[in-house]
Amino acid sequence: MLTSNQNPLVKEIRKLHSSKGRRQQQLLLLEGTHLLEEACAANYPLVTICGTPEWVQEHQQLWLDAASRCQRVEVVSTSVLKVIATTVQPDGVVATAKRILTTPDSQPQEGQLLTSVGLALETVQDPGNLGTIIRTAAAAGAERLWLSTDSVDLDNPKVLRASAGQWFRFPVAVSPDLTDLVCQCQAQGIQVVATVPDATSSYWDVDLQPATLVLLGNEAIGLKADLIAKADQQVNIPLAPGVESLNVAVAAALILYEAQRQRQHAG
Amino acid sequence: MLTSNQNPLVKEIRKLHSSKGRRQQQLLLLEGTHLLEEACAANYPLVTICGTPEWVQEHQQLWLDAASRCQRVEVVSTSVLKVIATTVQPDGVVATAKRILTTPDSQPQEGQLLTSVGLALETVQDPGNLGTIIRTAAAAGAERLWLSTDSVDLDNPKVLRASAGQWFRFPVAVSPDLTDLVCQCQAQGIQVVATVPDATSSYWDVDLQPATLVLLGNEAIGLKADLIAKADQQVNIPLAPGVESLNVAVAAALILYEAQRQRQHAG
Repeated sequence: MLTSNQNPLVKEIRKLHSSKGRRQQQLLLLEGTHLLEEACAANYPLVTICGTPEWVQEHQQLWLDAASRCQRVEVVSTSVLKVIATTVQPDGVVATAKRILTTPDSQPQEGQLLTSVGLALETVQDPGNLGTIIRTAAAAGAERLWLSTDSVDLDNPKVLRASAGQWFRFPVAVSPDLTDLVCQCQAQGIQVVATVPDATSSYWDVDLQPATLVLLGNEAIGLKADLIAKADQQVNIPLAPGVESLNVAVAAALILYEAQRQRQHAG
Repeated sequence: MLTSNQNPLVKEIRKLHSSKGRRQQQLLLLEGTHLLEEACAANYPLVTICGTPEWVQEHQQLWLDAASRCQRVEVVSTSVLKVIATTVQPDGVVATAKRILTTPDSQPQEGQLLTSVGLALETVQDPGNLGTIIRTAAAAGAERLWLSTDSVDLDNPKVLRASAGQWFRFPVAVSPDLTDLVCQCQAQGIQVVATVPDATSSYWDVDLQPATLVLLGNEAIGLKADLIAKADQQVNIPLAPGVESLNVAVAAALILYEAQRQRQHAG
């Protein structure tokens, strides 16, 4: 059993707590039973797994399955697990996995960018929000998601956790230029809808049944003016008097599910 | 300027980090510029305010306004502010306020419990989720919210922050018995709708225009069977294949906004 916090593996995994460390090692940090199950179910390439004796005892089948996918397998003490985890109360397992940020189908090289509904996020900062948006976009049957380069790191461990495993399945691409993406969509006949507080139409009153790219902006300042100007339509989400704004993950959920509702209740 | 972490005031405020301390002192902890602005705007009774010299310099009007509402006003060093705040990067101001958990109109003693839409939450555990639900319920024009006693503390500082100030405005009551609440609602002709993953109707297909109490359950296990059994209707939120569930704040948002949509698009 690995019990020393000075062990080289412990030091390497700790470096994955930072964005820089993940880039340098090209690895992700993956914490907790549920996320490990989801990674295995999605055949996501694992590299190392560390579990406490208690955790291994309680999750023998998952341990065997995950270990068979890993290059390195270590039983570690509870104190080592605490050091390698970013969560305050880790549940007994931490793994590393290859850092694949653009899946083959997350940025189609040719063909239609969207046939139903996609989402582009500009400068979203909170990892919990991004993870929740990925989870919700998958649930709502959205097609893919683009993220501006100045947003929170897509491989932040909190993003993975908040996505409840959908991170491993749902196509997300980091987009160097959302304005360019908007132009590409429009050239393909995809309508682009910007979410703007002072828009005159509500998201209920715009036809979201054609192929649609929805734009959502930063938690505090919303979308930047140049991106709004490029959109074909602007929509708001009605707010009761005295309420300034909604959480961005809530806003994303409302629009993506309204698009689903319109599709299922069409005709 | 207050610079010692051993000062009695500092020790008293630190005790408010815990649920027990807040109950004993009957005070809340209120952190950050935005929340302070919202508390002042809502005329919420403040008790003590502590700001760093830099923060006071930058927010003179808010400092004067808030200080005039407080019994005690202290300029504190940055290190003291870090000690009294629960956030990792506090923005320079922390206040305490009276702990009023049931506002006069949050639990009507007589008359109709609901005339439009209300929400009852069973065993919701995450403070960020509860705060986001309060913010969203206010935005969606919902009427009030009930919280089971085994849920996260309503006065957890993270609940206040995630509510983006709606905590001070939106009526929320802690309910000792949700089953009893459901019976009271039904006796008044209010329909009760339970959110259940395997319900046969979707939330789009149920008429939410009559007065409605929506029931939502714990993040991991959902609603308990006895509460589901009491409801008049069960609804699900459709999930794409491979997705297990939604974040509870997202689920709340979808149903509350669907109720609004139906009301605004009626007839």
